[in-house]
Amino acid sequence: MEHSFTKETERWGVFEISCPGKKEGNPFTDYAIEGCFKSKNEIVCVDGFYDGEGVYKVRFMPSFEDRYSFEIKGSFSEKTFAGEFAAGPPRKGNHGPLRVANSFHFAYEDGTPYYSIGTTCYVWELQHDDLQKQTLETLKNSAFNKIRFCIFPKHYDYNLKEPRSYPYEGTPMDSSVLTKENFLDYMGKTEGNNWDFKRFNLEHFRHIESCIQKLCAIGIEADLIVMHPYDRWGFSRMNAECDDLYWNYVIARFSAYRNVWWSLANEYDLFPDKNMADWERYASIICRKDKYNHLRSIHNYRPFYDYSRPWITHCSIQRQEVYKSAEYVTEWRERYKKPVVLDEIAYEGNIQHGWGNISGKELTRRFWEAFCRGGYAGHGETFTNSRDILWWSHGGELHGESPERFKFLKKILEKIPGHGLTPITASWDEVACCVEYPGARPGYYLFYYSFMRPSFRDYYFDDDNEWSVDVIDTWEMIIDPKGNFKGKFRIELPGKEYIAVRIQRRN
Amino acid sequence: MEHSFTKETERWGVFEISCPGKKEGNPFTDYAIEGCFKSKNEIVCVDGFYDGEGVYKVRFMPSFEDRYSFEIKGSFSEKTFAGEFAAGPPRKGNHGPLRVANSFHFAYEDGTPYYSIGTTCYVWELQHDDLQKQTLETLKNSAFNKIRFCIFPKHYDYNLKEPRSYPYEGTPMDSSVLTKENFLDYMGKTEGNNWDFKRFNLEHFRHIESCIQKLCAIGIEADLIVMHPYDRWGFSRMNAECDDLYWNYVIARFSAYRNVWWSLANEYDLFPDKNMADWERYASIICRKDKYNHLRSIHNYRPFYDYSRPWITHCSIQRQEVYKSAEYVTEWRERYKKPVVLDEIAYEGNIQHGWGNISGKELTRRFWEAFCRGGYAGHGETFTNSRDILWWSHGGELHGESPERFKFLKKILEKIPGHGLTPITASWDEVACCVEYPGARPGYYLFYYSFMRPSFRDYYFDDDNEWSVDVIDTWEMIIDPKGNFKGKFRIELPGKEYIAVRIQRRN
Repeated sequence: MEHSFTKETERWGVFEISCPGKKEGNPFTDYAIEGCFKSKNEIVCVDGFYDGEGVYKVRFMPSFEDRYSFEIKGSFSEKTFAGEFAAGPPRKGNHGPLRVANSFHFAYEDGTPYYSIGTTCYVWELQHDDLQKQTLETLKNSAFNKIRFCIFPKHYDYNLKEPRSYPYEGTPMDSSVLTKENFLDYMGKTEGNNWDFKRFNLEHFRHIESCIQKLCAIGIEADLIVMHPYDRWGFSRMNAECDDLYWNYVIARFSAYRNVWWSLANEYDLFPDKNMADWERYASIICRKDKYNHLRSIHNYRPFYDYSRPWITHCSIQRQEVYKSAEYVTEWRERYKKPVVLDEIAYEGNIQHGWGNISGKELTRRFWEAFCRGGYAGHGETFTNSRDILWWSHGGELHGESPERFKFLKKILEKIPGHGLTPITASWDEVACCVEYPGARPGYYLFYYSFMRPSFRDYYFDDDNEWSVDVIDTWEMIIDPKGNFKGKFRIELPGKEYIAVRIQRRN
Repeated sequence: MEHSFTKETERWGVFEISCPGKKEGNPFTDYAIEGCFKSKNEIVCVDGFYDGEGVYKVRFMPSFEDRYSFEIKGSFSEKTFAGEFAAGPPRKGNHGPLRVANSFHFAYEDGTPYYSIGTTCYVWELQHDDLQKQTLETLKNSAFNKIRFCIFPKHYDYNLKEPRSYPYEGTPMDSSVLTKENFLDYMGKTEGNNWDFKRFNLEHFRHIESCIQKLCAIGIEADLIVMHPYDRWGFSRMNAECDDLYWNYVIARFSAYRNVWWSLANEYDLFPDKNMADWERYASIICRKDKYNHLRSIHNYRPFYDYSRPWITHCSIQRQEVYKSAEYVTEWRERYKKPVVLDEIAYEGNIQHGWGNISGKELTRRFWEAFCRGGYAGHGETFTNSRDILWWSHGGELHGESPERFKFLKKILEKIPGHGLTPITASWDEVACCVEYPGARPGYYLFYYSFMRPSFRDYYFDDDNEWSVDVIDTWEMIIDPKGNFKGKFRIELPGKEYIAVRIQRRN
């Protein structure tokens, strides 16, 4: 047994240990490595992974501030590597991984509320370095605290170029044949590709984990889309053995990063060969192998996956129709009793596709509808431009009008006294929610008038308390304090679209 | 037998004859009068009505350009009044009453297509004279060709004053007790009123028929709401005998005016005492007594009346939910196979009620959605103002942004080569319709992009024909001719909301 003392990490940080091993044969399939980590509160055994040049790694995220001992055992050797380390207090900005706090809302493990304001940049991390840098800079200056992106490269309109790296050793089909007119003919095809699905391209995975870390450093959750059907290379059509190898590898490499969420798939229902048993098998691999219980979901194209499946922590929804999206949050909360995250409700932009050309006003409206109904909405942006760099897939800069409004929205959300908003029955022509206090009457209400433009509204909560009222112009981003009121009272409103009214009990 | 030669009328004009009779007792119930009119193509017998001071009248609308003879017989006398008259050619602008031309669309009896662009001013005709004059002037300068209004006065928010006249002899409750806070307590109440439901107030009915005539003169259909529940006088709660007396009187007085439509009720489902058998009985009275088969429908608050009832000529719909309204036209056409008229889909305005505070943009969008799905939408306007004069109930001036856009829309509709638009299956992110030509492929298409903002779209109809393309900005009211195209072609679009594309085959 080799014994080593290693440097400290922080609670919910990543403790990584490297062990020398064999590089003969195929180390990805021929050998296994496992590490067991122990403190007074937990014993966690996790798979490690091969990281090239004869080196095997094990990563671990300590859930407690404590001293840990560990033992690493690889099938390539009789030796056991052992050691100890201390997990110190979390550094500033580290609140741990995300959890479902109260059926419908999220919180970090340390209890800090988390109001998801997500965006989608499917393959931002597979673009050239300057563009990635710009994306991170944009994210840093935005309200977004979650980003959906894919581990596999993407093939689709505006996504015909080669990615910066591929997940496997081998060679791709010749992409010079692709045009805006014929790209759909290559969707789901495997011809012309030559991959070894049992040998991972380490550069690809190292790069992705560096991106996960960079996101973590700026407080952004990495909602990893592990599989997706927008594929011309065959990554969506591997056999079960290769799929499972991939899932195990991904989990072994990435699960120790606290900001990881698992999205089993983007548009699971568009895969030509997968069936429900496949998705359930991947889910069982995650549940068995991810020892940290990261958030798990799966995203639809049309039919919903059954979000009542016990392994699913939250709904990850693509809207079901052209006109209404966030308006259904109320219904979906009732149905699934889980957090409702609307990851696709059309993007702000002007491309030819109806899923990518709504206005910033309409997207912002959908966000407010979602939040005031007790759910969460997600953003994406698709403006045409001469360089064909669209935020939705490539990242870069934001051009739309909604992101500024999300910053304003986030400020409102961060002042909510509790864990998220609970919809209440109100007048048919308003969306209303409150913050629930166990055993007490709500002291915080938010009313949202969407595209309606009332020039006043009457309110009544009780006869005794004073209530402070703010009229919020969610588009112009103005909070207009109206003062304190008692009993039945009338609030004059600007008679414009997109107005909210916040009413809080004074103590 | 008395015999008289009278002056000419026009085809679809009103021929009226007055007969002296008894004024003792109650002439409204004690006596009846009937006239039979005969030409080589029709024999029509209609009820007349008592018009005060011992005078009984019979009105008749000739459906043919011909010589007519008639005989009038009153139960108050043994005498028969007989005579002849000529129905000459219709004067300019007189196209006859409206008919359902082809299941889903309307036409005047002379075959002229009619694209309904309705508005609602519930009791415009019961306001003071200057306001009525202003309403007529506004209508004359508008795109509206149908107006919904009530025969009975209206009691509701913004409608607490006395009407210019009442339909019955008697005295109303004291309206000085009414306030904006308590008016709902008086809804459907009868206390304090003292009416003789068997004696009509002739001034009221004479005035309404003068309004019907004035509307006719400016080409506007009078969609008469014969009953409604917004009532503090008991007119919505009369017994069956009085209801039937009223229905017979209304039909006898008004049915000879070619621009009359019968709306049995506004919000039939809000009447406290009426049941389905009542509505069906009123319908059977209309069908039996209105010899001209004016259009007939009934309007809902929540549940639809069964529009598949054979007496109903078209749907007169109030939207079923906050977010979608005109979008359901496609479904309702399928279900009812009748013209779909959306008489209430929220009004442009800024009052406190959610049914009266959407933007001009949203209302215009709903109109285009309705038309491009093969239906018809209706307007109303509810802006707060110091005089509490709201178009929706009182008429007056228009303040909104949508009416100007309806003029533009009307011009587009009037150039449709046929009788109305037929929805077609198109891409999920566009609303599309065509004009059907029996036995031939359509040569006219209209695509509408609603709130979506594509910056281009591809089209393909055939390889042989040339197609001329116009891009229509339905909000800015600009028609941008793009030229002629063949085969598959791409049209650049402005990437803005509310764009339509008109594509017509060149011959």
